[in-house]
Amino acid sequence: MVVETQLVTFPSLALDCGVTLAPVDCAYETYGTLNEARSNAILVCHAFSGDAHAAGISKEDGRPGWWSDMVGPGLAFDTDKYFVVCANVLGGCRGTTGPGSTNPATKAPFGMGFPVVTIGDMVRLQKLLIDHLGIARLLCVSGGSMGGMQTLAWAVLFPEAVASVIPIASTSRHSAQQIAFNEVGRQSIMSDPDWREGNYYSGPPPKRGLAVARMVGHITYMSDDSMKEKFGRRLRQRAELGYDFSAEFEVESYLRYRGSQFVDRFDANSYLYITKAMDYFDLASGHGSLGAAFEKTRARFLVISFTSDWLYPTYQSLEIVSALRGRNRDVAYCELPSTYGHDAFLLEVEEQTELVRGFLASTFRNIGRAASL
Amino acid sequence: MVVETQLVTFPSLALDCGVTLAPVDCAYETYGTLNEARSNAILVCHAFSGDAHAAGISKEDGRPGWWSDMVGPGLAFDTDKYFVVCANVLGGCRGTTGPGSTNPATKAPFGMGFPVVTIGDMVRLQKLLIDHLGIARLLCVSGGSMGGMQTLAWAVLFPEAVASVIPIASTSRHSAQQIAFNEVGRQSIMSDPDWREGNYYSGPPPKRGLAVARMVGHITYMSDDSMKEKFGRRLRQRAELGYDFSAEFEVESYLRYRGSQFVDRFDANSYLYITKAMDYFDLASGHGSLGAAFEKTRARFLVISFTSDWLYPTYQSLEIVSALRGRNRDVAYCELPSTYGHDAFLLEVEEQTELVRGFLASTFRNIGRAASL
Repeated sequence: MVVETQLVTFPSLALDCGVTLAPVDCAYETYGTLNEARSNAILVCHAFSGDAHAAGISKEDGRPGWWSDMVGPGLAFDTDKYFVVCANVLGGCRGTTGPGSTNPATKAPFGMGFPVVTIGDMVRLQKLLIDHLGIARLLCVSGGSMGGMQTLAWAVLFPEAVASVIPIASTSRHSAQQIAFNEVGRQSIMSDPDWREGNYYSGPPPKRGLAVARMVGHITYMSDDSMKEKFGRRLRQRAELGYDFSAEFEVESYLRYRGSQFVDRFDANSYLYITKAMDYFDLASGHGSLGAAFEKTRARFLVISFTSDWLYPTYQSLEIVSALRGRNRDVAYCELPSTYGHDAFLLEVEEQTELVRGFLASTFRNIGRAASL
Repeated sequence: MVVETQLVTFPSLALDCGVTLAPVDCAYETYGTLNEARSNAILVCHAFSGDAHAAGISKEDGRPGWWSDMVGPGLAFDTDKYFVVCANVLGGCRGTTGPGSTNPATKAPFGMGFPVVTIGDMVRLQKLLIDHLGIARLLCVSGGSMGGMQTLAWAVLFPEAVASVIPIASTSRHSAQQIAFNEVGRQSIMSDPDWREGNYYSGPPPKRGLAVARMVGHITYMSDDSMKEKFGRRLRQRAELGYDFSAEFEVESYLRYRGSQFVDRFDANSYLYITKAMDYFDLASGHGSLGAAFEKTRARFLVISFTSDWLYPTYQSLEIVSALRGRNRDVAYCELPSTYGHDAFLLEVEEQTELVRGFLASTFRNIGRAASL
């Protein structure tokens, strides 16, 4: 299944901060076929560093998508049955308008002149895309981590447009610890002299700062156990006691590699804008309480968390579940056992598949029944 | 109790790496009075960023010591009864010889020409100090975090010279996750152009890299709960949606402040050397197993961990306890409830005091009985 990222340009998008972006590009991919009733569409939302390439093989570089184990023929999000859409988020750097895009007013990259964006803004751009694709109501919106925040925002912002949502390993708002980890990444980037207040597009990007930020991220995505299983205290070469400061432990070289790899595909300013959007996300804000925020939702919910995920711990999913139950919403919840930490939403395929497949099938049946009444 | 840091210079110290440092300075403080039998001496070992100033008021800058709540008249380490010693570690930057010290061979700072040091080397320098003070056998060696590693190394390297040890919130070796966090700090420093391969002593130090490294450290020292209690999602000023990238959440400004404060008192190269010593520490190494390492120990052990400490989790203390029990060693263990995370060893005074006071008193009585036989 070779796929090509597509681009659609919308005339404008009004943002939470009051600024209107005009025009706005949105990069997206689709998998499977939209049925005649247009009732089988699923939007998959990517996490912080993901992009529109969720599944299939990229025509551009031959790579599989970030959720290729979950989205495809016969998989959890079965593209033989469903029409799956994934878009790069607003503020990103993989096709959708972001700080690296050209500012029409100056003909130069926005840089830090890019307006502040929110999770709600990301979702509003996705809504434009869904409208553009002729879909009035999504069968489901699903995603892990920041993708999960988007699913929740969808349920609250567009209650009529989404039949079900599956937030995975996510939260209704960041804790102080989550904000702190993001802030370390931002400080690391902004401390790199190559960052130059965000005006680095004509010169070298802040590679070193971005790589360190990514290293911190990777630690938080794994668990103590998964790191132990993957690396333990293994040394790359047998170090005698004349050891030095080159990477010697396997975990060191892994992190350095992942950090350096990241800088080739990610824009440092997007790192700043998207982490800030995550930190500011607070679903209850403006509603008084989380329960009140869910008051107008009409979707069914399947909430999933993982035992070893210490970045988005189970208690944060339980807050969502509890608020939904308090409003008598249709919510299923499952904490899956895993040693993979936060990465589990990408790696624990089997049990997620079982849950998602059943949930989607029953939602699809319900919609069919409702339509035939 | 005004105290002054003292300095003693030893002719030389042979290191694990094969290099001999000559001469070696050791900065230390003492509190209380050594009794005639020289049987009431306690060595307190500091954690990663600590120094010799454990207690009392510094004559130099009027500050209390890092363990002032635990060391003093009537406190856990009661200086009315005991003679307490604390020394800055080898490789440090607070008086003891380290990478910022002058290399006698070049008359310039060592920088990265400083030999690699180990926790064992730190302990051997402390042994020179204890000999210098005329103490044949310590009543106790105690410390938290990296200080705890030193207490374990004491018990193994100098079994005749220590009657008891109290490792707190510590480990017999770093996990992959602990190494990973340290590696992020090192990379942050070494990525700062001002680091200049460690040759920054005649110019500006790598402040930005060191500050980011410290920010990561602070997150790991606290718990999700303690951060929530201390900061929550509170904003410093009411941010409207026109928010920007200045520090807005209280947790952000706290971390930035602690990071910037740290660079004024800590040397970046010491950060590199000391974290590497921690990462390489493996008490079982060369013995075959942790139990075998404890084979020749003669000390009594009191091992303490804290429920919310995710940096040095309880399971690491239990590994120590289990290995000691397997060799039929005299070991008491207590996991104390706390929400403070790793910082608990500095903050949970009351319960630690009770444990430490009783343990020291009974050890002291035992020694008296043994001496009178």
